[in-house]
Amino acid sequence: MKIKLNDNYRNLSESYLFSEIARRVREYKEAEPEKGERIVRLGIGDVTLPLAPAVVSAMEAAVREMGDASTFRGYPPEYGYDFLREAIASHYASFGVKIPPEDIFVSDGAKSDVGNIVDILGDNTVYIPDPVYPVYLDSNVMSGRRIEFIPGNEKNGFLPMPDGINCEGAVFYLCSPNNPTGAVYDREKLRVWVDFALRTGSLIIFDSAYEAFVTGDLPHSIYEIEGAEKCAVEICSFSKTAGFTGTRCAWCVVPSAAMSGGMSLNKMWRRRQATKFNGVSYPVQRAAEAALSPEGLGQCMENIAYYMENARIISDFLDRKGISYTGGRYSPYVWLKCPDGMSSWEFFDYLLTKAQVVGTPGEGFGSCGEGYFRLTSFGSREGTEEAVRRLEELL
Amino acid sequence: MKIKLNDNYRNLSESYLFSEIARRVREYKEAEPEKGERIVRLGIGDVTLPLAPAVVSAMEAAVREMGDASTFRGYPPEYGYDFLREAIASHYASFGVKIPPEDIFVSDGAKSDVGNIVDILGDNTVYIPDPVYPVYLDSNVMSGRRIEFIPGNEKNGFLPMPDGINCEGAVFYLCSPNNPTGAVYDREKLRVWVDFALRTGSLIIFDSAYEAFVTGDLPHSIYEIEGAEKCAVEICSFSKTAGFTGTRCAWCVVPSAAMSGGMSLNKMWRRRQATKFNGVSYPVQRAAEAALSPEGLGQCMENIAYYMENARIISDFLDRKGISYTGGRYSPYVWLKCPDGMSSWEFFDYLLTKAQVVGTPGEGFGSCGEGYFRLTSFGSREGTEEAVRRLEELL
Repeated sequence: MKIKLNDNYRNLSESYLFSEIARRVREYKEAEPEKGERIVRLGIGDVTLPLAPAVVSAMEAAVREMGDASTFRGYPPEYGYDFLREAIASHYASFGVKIPPEDIFVSDGAKSDVGNIVDILGDNTVYIPDPVYPVYLDSNVMSGRRIEFIPGNEKNGFLPMPDGINCEGAVFYLCSPNNPTGAVYDREKLRVWVDFALRTGSLIIFDSAYEAFVTGDLPHSIYEIEGAEKCAVEICSFSKTAGFTGTRCAWCVVPSAAMSGGMSLNKMWRRRQATKFNGVSYPVQRAAEAALSPEGLGQCMENIAYYMENARIISDFLDRKGISYTGGRYSPYVWLKCPDGMSSWEFFDYLLTKAQVVGTPGEGFGSCGEGYFRLTSFGSREGTEEAVRRLEELL
Repeated sequence: MKIKLNDNYRNLSESYLFSEIARRVREYKEAEPEKGERIVRLGIGDVTLPLAPAVVSAMEAAVREMGDASTFRGYPPEYGYDFLREAIASHYASFGVKIPPEDIFVSDGAKSDVGNIVDILGDNTVYIPDPVYPVYLDSNVMSGRRIEFIPGNEKNGFLPMPDGINCEGAVFYLCSPNNPTGAVYDREKLRVWVDFALRTGSLIIFDSAYEAFVTGDLPHSIYEIEGAEKCAVEICSFSKTAGFTGTRCAWCVVPSAAMSGGMSLNKMWRRRQATKFNGVSYPVQRAAEAALSPEGLGQCMENIAYYMENARIISDFLDRKGISYTGGRYSPYVWLKCPDGMSSWEFFDYLLTKAQVVGTPGEGFGSCGEGYFRLTSFGSREGTEEAVRRLEELL
């Protein structure tokens, strides 16, 4: 063909992180079949516990409704059923945030929202933390935006702040609790960010996919900070809260107060979704509603507590060893400094070959991740305890 | 804020079609409450029959799997599970088309694919039939493309052809069976289009969402035409085939042979989906697989036969009256010329007030739709027969 394609795709770099991990594990198992049998995986970024019983019942009931002429439902509303938008609004209300249901847009996943939100934006400079979830970067490379990185490091506890950034009308991505570092912005730090955005006319795209892991006084939502409704879009998901990685449901808050150049982001996103999206499967929306019901949320929180106990086991061990880390308390991720100045991949090989424990090299999440390593709490209790026993001996 | 937004959104025109229909119906019901009770709707573009029993069973079983630790599934593959890609490939094979499963991308809806496919394209001139499904136009306005219309009319039977179009490397949308006209390209006409695309280096985006309504020798897929794998992307859906408008599953074929400027559309779409999409809900994919099983497809085809009988009742009536129309035989849509030179909206009001029958004014699908009217077969048998009885008396 002689059509023009999106040339920005030429600027994407291939991510070899997970394929490289798979390759090294495979080769090790081939070389050391007996030890290969003992491998424990603490690199999993996906949930492993099944859906909560209340969620399963609600979804089954909805599937049966779809099989009955008197209760069958066709096209869902593009923005989500009212029952789910209202359930999400009540969820926000439970930590003191008032979001009108019409500012909530239900979708099939946080990745879709993070990726698609760039559709309504113009040619702004985009600031992306490093290390971070790679979709922020790739979706902006695809749309040809100018990208600056905001480094996370030991000094700022992997919580980059806007100090020294000189901009007007830029776009900032923040993720809290962060993937991969597990670091969480407290109220004060988030207030600095919101004030900075308001002062510079910038937009914050706030990814709160891990908010269910937050406890105590730490903010679940950027809208806990005054003024955020004028400068922030928030993307959240049922994936980690309710184990929906395979069930697929998320939401995005685009406040009516978010305006620029006389245009309303809420109206633009409404139009984008009505044009390019046809809503989420009805049984999935009923499942998501059940996950936020008192019974469902209670069951989901038991799963979160299970993962958090795994995270505690890992971080208690690091405390005992005096290895510095972020995360682990309000996040399923533990982000540790590789001991003895090892690089991310050196440490990966060291753990694989000496302890048969697989984690994720931090360098795969951005250049500031070099020298760091991610362990996750999504494995089983037995696997986590066994891995820690081996690391205890090794390190 | 002072960020730049996507200014192309300013060029979108609001569609008042369905809200205007709703307003006129509401006002009529208020003015004539008794007659308002008699209203029959033949304007529905959504399916109304429930999911097939085989589909419901498969989806229920998959939901139960998600509730059990030993069968739970996390993130699905972004491109769809192999079991579903293979089922779709077999579906193509059933009408003689060979598509490798890796060229098939499972998604949550044809609207998503139609809307998102522009992400991988560059700044080409886009040709869109008129009248047609409005997403082709709006998604290209959003991305600031230069748009030309290809008029459908009585002369070409609402099957626009490339005669007289002078272009190199352009993008063409085709929809067959067409929404709203119900017109279907036969093999010869489609061959002309494919040859034209190959000759001019153009891309055809072929929307085959209504292929299940096609019988006999008419093509179900553009890939029935030789060479199409080099110049066409095809978007299809379970929405109409299996009544999935509320269940949400579709697919897109991006052949490995489709290349331009050394770039592979398949690889670009793969990257786009991996970055901005996280796959379709596992129970939904199992439901879709069941819809293509011999048992499920048989049940779905009974539903299609029900709608087609409704379409036959409408088109037989138009034949008796000598009113010219397209569609109705291989499509759920019947597209008729408004009698006595009435405009689309005049005819709408005439049917509403004289017969209490609601359809869709053709003008809402593009300026070439003025003077035409869409009736659909997605209502009940009783409603369709009653509507035709009233139209028989009126016209």
